[in-house]
Amino acid sequence: MTPSKPVRTAFYVSGSTAITAETLGRSMLTQFSEYNFRQVTLPYLQNPAQIEAAVLRIKLAAEEDGSRPIVFSTLTDPLLLKELRRSEALVLDLFDAFLVPLEREIGQPPTLKSGQSHAVRDLNSYRIRADAVHFAMQNDDGARTTYYDQADLIVIGVSRSGKTPTCLYMAMQYGLYMANYPLTEEDFDDLRLPKSLLPHQHKLFALTIGADRLEEIRQQRRGGSRYASRQQCDMEVRAFGALISRFQIPSLEVTEYSIEEISSRILAKTGLRRRLF
Amino acid sequence: MTPSKPVRTAFYVSGSTAITAETLGRSMLTQFSEYNFRQVTLPYLQNPAQIEAAVLRIKLAAEEDGSRPIVFSTLTDPLLLKELRRSEALVLDLFDAFLVPLEREIGQPPTLKSGQSHAVRDLNSYRIRADAVHFAMQNDDGARTTYYDQADLIVIGVSRSGKTPTCLYMAMQYGLYMANYPLTEEDFDDLRLPKSLLPHQHKLFALTIGADRLEEIRQQRRGGSRYASRQQCDMEVRAFGALISRFQIPSLEVTEYSIEEISSRILAKTGLRRRLF
Repeated sequence: MTPSKPVRTAFYVSGSTAITAETLGRSMLTQFSEYNFRQVTLPYLQNPAQIEAAVLRIKLAAEEDGSRPIVFSTLTDPLLLKELRRSEALVLDLFDAFLVPLEREIGQPPTLKSGQSHAVRDLNSYRIRADAVHFAMQNDDGARTTYYDQADLIVIGVSRSGKTPTCLYMAMQYGLYMANYPLTEEDFDDLRLPKSLLPHQHKLFALTIGADRLEEIRQQRRGGSRYASRQQCDMEVRAFGALISRFQIPSLEVTEYSIEEISSRILAKTGLRRRLF
Repeated sequence: MTPSKPVRTAFYVSGSTAITAETLGRSMLTQFSEYNFRQVTLPYLQNPAQIEAAVLRIKLAAEEDGSRPIVFSTLTDPLLLKELRRSEALVLDLFDAFLVPLEREIGQPPTLKSGQSHAVRDLNSYRIRADAVHFAMQNDDGARTTYYDQADLIVIGVSRSGKTPTCLYMAMQYGLYMANYPLTEEDFDDLRLPKSLLPHQHKLFALTIGADRLEEIRQQRRGGSRYASRQQCDMEVRAFGALISRFQIPSLEVTEYSIEEISSRILAKTGLRRRLF
């Protein structure tokens, strides 16, 4: 939080996980830089007493902040939503805004069941996800290279370029079989690919990162070490760049990106088909 | 997909990752059971030529399905959005619907920068996430118990109850330090907790699962084995239930839930404070 800005509270209110309300609300709030938004998630509100308690919390936040809170809601029960609208807040209900045009288009009333999108544990997608997460864990950090024939993609990069979180995110969200392999100093000596990667060149995808950022991340991890030194980071970044250019390995420059953005860009660049939606 | 239902296409259109459009769109579509929705994500659309290509894809889908596609958009560029609205579809723009009331409330125009919510790679939250994911991987499946003093929560359950994906999801989304420990037949002999868990009883959280579902999951994994047999699943489920009841370990019955819902329910039940938003 930037201390100089006034604080305003945003509530995410839902009859279920509140993931949808959070995702949209956060997107919206990043469009307004005037406030520091304090974010409060209130999931699983399913009866009038729970709504009443939420309305009270909203009122207290309004008093504390000196401004109306902003409430992003995905309540599907019209009575609960009506109660919520009594609160001293700007209440933006996502279903309210979109269900009416959708109903008109589709010609069928909505089921109004709460939280369908994150609640359904369909056995097949559960298995796809669990298997993909398992694969990512077993094939993390070059630990094992014998299953690379089953991998959808093998992510390569220098240490601390974001390979592990990217692979796990892509496994979890897309159900893809993601392996990753770290390239280290020794691999750069002769500008060759490690032997275990050679048979899988077509599956390689490189994460590149600026030396500045790499140094920053490594200093946080092992401050003052040779590993984290500017010279070492410079060398690895340069050598890795030469290697992927030599072998024409597709790559993404990740310095400015979050894990979500890295993952969705890799998906778009490679054209891999996700197994989960 | 249910083969008997007509197919209709939903597009998620964005200048950035399209994660927000996907999340909200999916929530909406689960409210309508009349169609099988084919979902197409079109991320990173940033110029008129890309929008034109999207409009063409939408047109082709309309012809193929014999009905207008539904387009969920988070385009922030008014000109691109105007182009998109020319397509033969119901175009629902999320920013359009909510930015106007928000602007009025906040008294400041939106920045209209695309994809702020998933794009910003803030070094601090990047580190929190990477460290939490690292912790979850190192402390998966009882592999190591020496770091349990650093854990926020230690998830216990029988094999295949969903511990690993839950811990990774909570690490990734909430930045929490999640360990997990599988309880097996040997642990049930005398209704005691394994020694390594004893000093951390207050951090334990149990996932319980119905024997039916457990059998189904294990059969997919190791069909016909004793491990997957109904008798074995029944025994483990019963013994695990007795153990957590004896030690009064808080628990969640996960049979019907997705990983997202398990995670958000654990967060709500334990009152743990997330480190990431």
